[in-house]
Amino acid sequence: MSRHAPPARYELHPQLAADTHPLASLALCELRLMDDANYPWLVLVPRVPAARDLVDLETAQRHQLTDEIDLAGRLLREAFRPYKLNVAALGNLVPQLHVHVIAREENDPAWPAPVWGRVAARAYPPEALVERVRLLRGLLPG
Amino acid sequence: MSRHAPPARYELHPQLAADTHPLASLALCELRLMDDANYPWLVLVPRVPAARDLVDLETAQRHQLTDEIDLAGRLLREAFRPYKLNVAALGNLVPQLHVHVIAREENDPAWPAPVWGRVAARAYPPEALVERVRLLRGLLPG
Repeated sequence: MSRHAPPARYELHPQLAADTHPLASLALCELRLMDDANYPWLVLVPRVPAARDLVDLETAQRHQLTDEIDLAGRLLREAFRPYKLNVAALGNLVPQLHVHVIAREENDPAWPAPVWGRVAARAYPPEALVERVRLLRGLLPG
Repeated sequence: MSRHAPPARYELHPQLAADTHPLASLALCELRLMDDANYPWLVLVPRVPAARDLVDLETAQRHQLTDEIDLAGRLLREAFRPYKLNVAALGNLVPQLHVHVIAREENDPAWPAPVWGRVAARAYPPEALVERVRLLRGLLPG
């Protein structure tokens, strides 16, 4: 048994891995699609070991995260023309820092409340998932 | 009757004015205290006319906002040593862009759910409000 803990390295939290599908690897974050067809819902996970809150990031990381939040928001705007975007870093249940970027409509199942804890997640049927991922990847720059 | 709308200028939304108390005027944002003694809860309102979503900001404004979110988070950390910080730009009810920065505890009235729509806001008694504002202003840099 080693007397030393292994060096901290980034690893996607198992709960986030279970709830989301990979879309793209950005400069700082993994961009993932929440498996909930109730809302177009992206999740950004900075590849920063042990980061839990936004204040755990360094300035350059924070600015890069903000740019990637902007990218995710524009992606949703272009794909879905939503009524509103919701952006949130909560992490009360999953301790790894992650940011939700969600397209909201005035007739979505939780409107006007925040989405968390309102209605059960509705997993994408396989073909709809493939189509959604294709659409979003096709709109990513580069 | 003028044929032209007046030029857009920043004005705090009346609902935000009613729900919050002024703490400080930062480079980009008004920093305000939510009048809800259930949680230490700050609100940042960028003085950017007509901004509704984060994607409405220009890059420099976005980075500045992120720095001010960081400042607000550190302020809450220093004052209250919370278990978790929650940061969110929702705006489903109040259309003016504003960012919540909330100190959360494992025994607060909404934990682990997000705070919105859980328990009724509990206004600060006058003396507690004065003390809370004094504490937070005293920790602000500069």
